[in-house]
Amino acid sequence: MWLQKEFRLKPRPRGFHLITNEVLSEIPELKTFNPGLLNLLIKHTSASLTINENADPTVRQDFENFFTRNVPENESYYLHQDEGSDDLPAHLKSSILGASLNIPVTNGRLNLGTWQGIYLCEHRNHGGSRSLVATLQGET
Amino acid sequence: MWLQKEFRLKPRPRGFHLITNEVLSEIPELKTFNPGLLNLLIKHTSASLTINENADPTVRQDFENFFTRNVPENESYYLHQDEGSDDLPAHLKSSILGASLNIPVTNGRLNLGTWQGIYLCEHRNHGGSRSLVATLQGET
Amino acid sequence: MWLQKEFRLKPRPRGFHLITNEVLSEIPELKTFNPGLLNLLIKHTSASLTINENADPTVRQDFENFFTRNVPENESYYLHQDEGSDDLPAHLKSSILGASLNIPVTNGRLNLGTWQGIYLCEHRNHGGSRSLVATLQGET
Repeated sequence: MWLQKEFRLKPRPRGFHLITNEVLSEIPELKTFNPGLLNLLIKHTSASLTINENADPTVRQDFENFFTRNVPENESYYLHQDEGSDDLPAHLKSSILGASLNIPVTNGRLNLGTWQGIYLCEHRNHGGSRSLVATLQGET
Repeated sequence: MWLQKEFRLKPRPRGFHLITNEVLSEIPELKTFNPGLLNLLIKHTSASLTINENADPTVRQDFENFFTRNVPENESYYLHQDEGSDDLPAHLKSSILGASLNIPVTNGRLNLGTWQGIYLCEHRNHGGSRSLVATLQGET
Repeated sequence: MWLQKEFRLKPRPRGFHLITNEVLSEIPELKTFNPGLLNLLIKHTSASLTINENADPTVRQDFENFFTRNVPENESYYLHQDEGSDDLPAHLKSSILGASLNIPVTNGRLNLGTWQGIYLCEHRNHGGSRSLVATLQGET
């Protein structure tokens, strides 16, 4: 059984954001899959998806600060500069963190660890609403 | 055909560890799949999975040293500090390396390159036993 | 429906290279899948695959420069040195960027964003031709 859907996330400011519930609300059919697998792809090259801690929000602030310091803007050797100083670092962060996730589904639920959630990593200052493709497959 | 299993790895010290054989011993059913795909998810946010060199153990030591230097503990700007100085860096490394793998299966074997193996990346000083979900699908 | 193929890419120099069209030319059967999912694995530990900007070639030059600066050669603490100074950094970059991709297929096409393409990340000075496994599954 296959199900594929495309949807847009609410726009969010630059930073790391927990979006597990927003994603789940877009694919209620997930409840009927067991076992299965969910693939999520973000259709952009300046934002990314990752799995990390779903509890303490300071983890997400530390992520933003770490990546801003370690993938800096305005390096003199950057050639790709005409889309804004946040653009090339956003591309780099997107490839370091990755554009897609693959999550097992068990008994109609994402089989993540207790402390795991899905992050939208918004690397641009004004990224706007981001498009995701959800591809769900498995037994129903 | 779908098969899904959850299992725990032996506890290992902080560092990078080759676990290909331990993973394979948990899913002997893989021998009947052709073609197929194996998804592995680690259900934790302070450890990760990656594919890398399965031969010279100094590669794994260099990985530990590289990531310890480049994702340092005790940065003054870290806000998330109450779970130990190794905790926030462990979350960062987990997202940089990733929590899941997807490996093709051919003739009942993982279709990896000659020099590729599966690493458990244990980022905590005392991470204990880690849980994995293996989701195997394909033709049998 | 499952389809699995192994093929070699043209050899390319060290750097980041857009290979979307070369990959698609190897799997013309993709046109019959809807929906589906494509898994690509690079069978090497010193090269990697990522999704990023398919337009301005300076993005790829900046990627090479960023990763060469941030995953440097000849660090005095590296133990794994007997395969050349570009070897251990190549292993590190491969795990940071990742050895596989999973891309949704819709109406017989890769469902990527307008600006997304597939990069071969060649981390060695003389990597030669690289082997990929394509595993395609879905409804036809």
